Amino acid sequence: MTLRVANEVLPIAEDEYRARLDRTQHAMKAAGFDALLLTAESNFRYITGFNSQTWVNLTRPRYCIVPLRGDPVVICPKSNVVILETTSWISDVRTWPAPRPEDDGVSLVVEALKSCSGQSGRVGAELGAESRLGMPVGDFLRIRDAVAPTTIADGEYLLRRLRMVKSPAEIARCRAIGHIASDGFARLAQSLRAGDTERDAAAKLQADLLAHGAEKMPYVIAVSGEHGYPCINMGPSDRVLDAGDVLIIDTGSTFDGYYCDFDREFAFGTPCDDVRRAYDKVWRATSAGIAAVRPGVRTCDVWQAMALSLDADSVSGTGVGRMGHGLGLQMTEWPSINREDQTVLAENMVITIEPGIAFSTTDRHGHAVQKVLVHEENIVVTVDGSAMLSKRAPTEMPVVH
Amino acid sequence: MTLRVANEVLPIAEDEYRARLDRTQHAMKAAGFDALLLTAESNFRYITGFNSQTWVNLTRPRYCIVPLRGDPVVICPKSNVVILETTSWISDVRTWPAPRPEDDGVSLVVEALKSCSGQSGRVGAELGAESRLGMPVGDFLRIRDAVAPTTIADGEYLLRRLRMVKSPAEIARCRAIGHIASDGFARLAQSLRAGDTERDAAAKLQADLLAHGAEKMPYVIAVSGEHGYPCINMGPSDRVLDAGDVLIIDTGSTFDGYYCDFDREFAFGTPCDDVRRAYDKVWRATSAGIAAVRPGVRTCDVWQAMALSLDADSVSGTGVGRMGHGLGLQMTEWPSINREDQTVLAENMVITIEPGIAFSTTDRHGHAVQKVLVHEENIVVTVDGSAMLSKRAPTEMPVVH
Repeated sequence: MTLRVANEVLPIAEDEYRARLDRTQHAMKAAGFDALLLTAESNFRYITGFNSQTWVNLTRPRYCIVPLRGDPVVICPKSNVVILETTSWISDVRTWPAPRPEDDGVSLVVEALKSCSGQSGRVGAELGAESRLGMPVGDFLRIRDAVAPTTIADGEYLLRRLRMVKSPAEIARCRAIGHIASDGFARLAQSLRAGDTERDAAAKLQADLLAHGAEKMPYVIAVSGEHGYPCINMGPSDRVLDAGDVLIIDTGSTFDGYYCDFDREFAFGTPCDDVRRAYDKVWRATSAGIAAVRPGVRTCDVWQAMALSLDADSVSGTGVGRMGHGLGLQMTEWPSINREDQTVLAENMVITIEPGIAFSTTDRHGHAVQKVLVHEENIVVTVDGSAMLSKRAPTEMPVVH
Repeated sequence: MTLRVANEVLPIAEDEYRARLDRTQHAMKAAGFDALLLTAESNFRYITGFNSQTWVNLTRPRYCIVPLRGDPVVICPKSNVVILETTSWISDVRTWPAPRPEDDGVSLVVEALKSCSGQSGRVGAELGAESRLGMPVGDFLRIRDAVAPTTIADGEYLLRRLRMVKSPAEIARCRAIGHIASDGFARLAQSLRAGDTERDAAAKLQADLLAHGAEKMPYVIAVSGEHGYPCINMGPSDRVLDAGDVLIIDTGSTFDGYYCDFDREFAFGTPCDDVRRAYDKVWRATSAGIAAVRPGVRTCDVWQAMALSLDADSVSGTGVGRMGHGLGLQMTEWPSINREDQTVLAENMVITIEPGIAFSTTDRHGHAVQKVLVHEENIVVTVDGSAMLSKRAPTEMPVVH
């Protein structure tokens, strides 16, 4: 069953990895870096192709060093060699017998960085906003001291910029998982029942996604409440879903390493007018956001298009702090779609469009209560606009009877 | 369906979190720390109870500051407040409107750390072996500079030591997922068919685990080959399973945040003598390892018991570098069970017993080939020995016809 979709998506060839390397080295030259030190799963995979769930295990780090010229060097535990031989195009692989807490690859990394040392005297590492280092920071500081007078500065922004623009192979993966999840949400609207818990709902969706070819489902939240939900990033809990409830499920699931990230809502029984108005308002703001997207437009312009369609107070009330973001090997990538961000959209960027509002309604006891409502879609920027990667949410909230 | 197991496992009460805090503060006092700065999901959850899949999103970090006296402070994005109110006992919550790349909580963290400043002038952070910082390193370095003359040193080892010994509530969670996965593997032996791919096999197991109450399945690898597999940490691929193949599946799945981590093997058709001998040898080494476990014994002694049962060359041939490890909120926790590690086992530690060997066999063309064979079980150290958390693997490899 999983092969059907896989066959429509071709493997990423060595040529593509070499093109990524070439672009990276051009950017390094322009920015004045002799080498990049990569340790985070997404950057490591982007350059090397290395594909393994072993990143869950924090005992053994791995390192990719991209020199200004020539092929990358991978420094990894012995137990990673077969993975590299099977999934990566990199031939210069240096190993140590991990775990070895007193030197978990550190001396090999220092040696490799020293041999890259050149004109600029600078190495780029993953230090900037939204980055995470895939190694112990104590070891990073040791490496930094050992390579002096070479300095280590943030270099992740180079890869972040390159990774924003996707290749056809990358877009195909985002589309594959976007379609799997869209169809899964549509089927979920049929299989949900009053009396299900949030946990049941999330489990039903996950079972469906698995059966239709999703690879991993790292993020499947479910939040519900009477006439709306209080936030979009927790659960599922054992809360039982019943008449009057609104349920949101948001999923970041993957196909061959690439994420979708979008949500859908379900009303248990006919939703009240407040909920229907909020849904319609945010649905239309989503359309406004999508319509604003084309090459040359800035992310802040897309934000403004959505903000115009909503009202400013209710936008800030969600607490989410932006209305969309990049998407790819990570569930959230650069850029943010917010009031300040000036990133200029370009063809083949994959982004989410994610407007939301806070709204007031009345609970069964007649008390005023605050809820949020957030929609999300995944799109790719095309030459003259955008194309959907998720299938557009229904114009009215699906009702579970 | 998921409630059945959940009802047997009680929520972790505020008393338990307060006891964890108390032990942490005692350890901080003894080690000379004025505060701990925690940013990794496992440590953050261990102290605060904060439970959300939002850690998949790297845009917004969060910080827990444990002072030497008094309650912890949480510094988090506004969008995390409802999660904290719902899942955490912490009342001192300070927020900022994230994402805000120019100050993603940094000034709030600096202010909170300065107000903890005391006699020792030292703050502990997650810097040591096997740790990962859950925030950008650039921001960490900024904080380090801003709190000077207070110094920041590795303090994670304190929590690592405390977290090694589990509470009854933690053990119940490890047991719950250990049983779900054990039963799932047993059912998989019945549902596997020649002609399935590795991906099908992994998907069947995951669907089963989900249906029986597993929460997340971050790690479900599947590797196969003729008469054995080449490593234990990659796949599943689209390789078709057929007569003569051996398949290993290893899963790190969770129940309410706590992991199991063990594997099972499946033979497609009657396994050859080399495979049967290897399986029997490693099965007996697993028993030897389990039998060696009791309070007061060192991890290296448990390793020796397994090494004695195997032979030294074939042990190092697996490349795994150890024969078990701690288990809990992470799939792999301190300590390692290896030749050097001197950790003294104590009651209520949860560990994996994971011996393995490299062995030679002959492929269908008559060529000598190298394979590995690794077994794994999850146990808890008891007052006079140990108790199984996984259900012991069958004495002979299950055969799929």
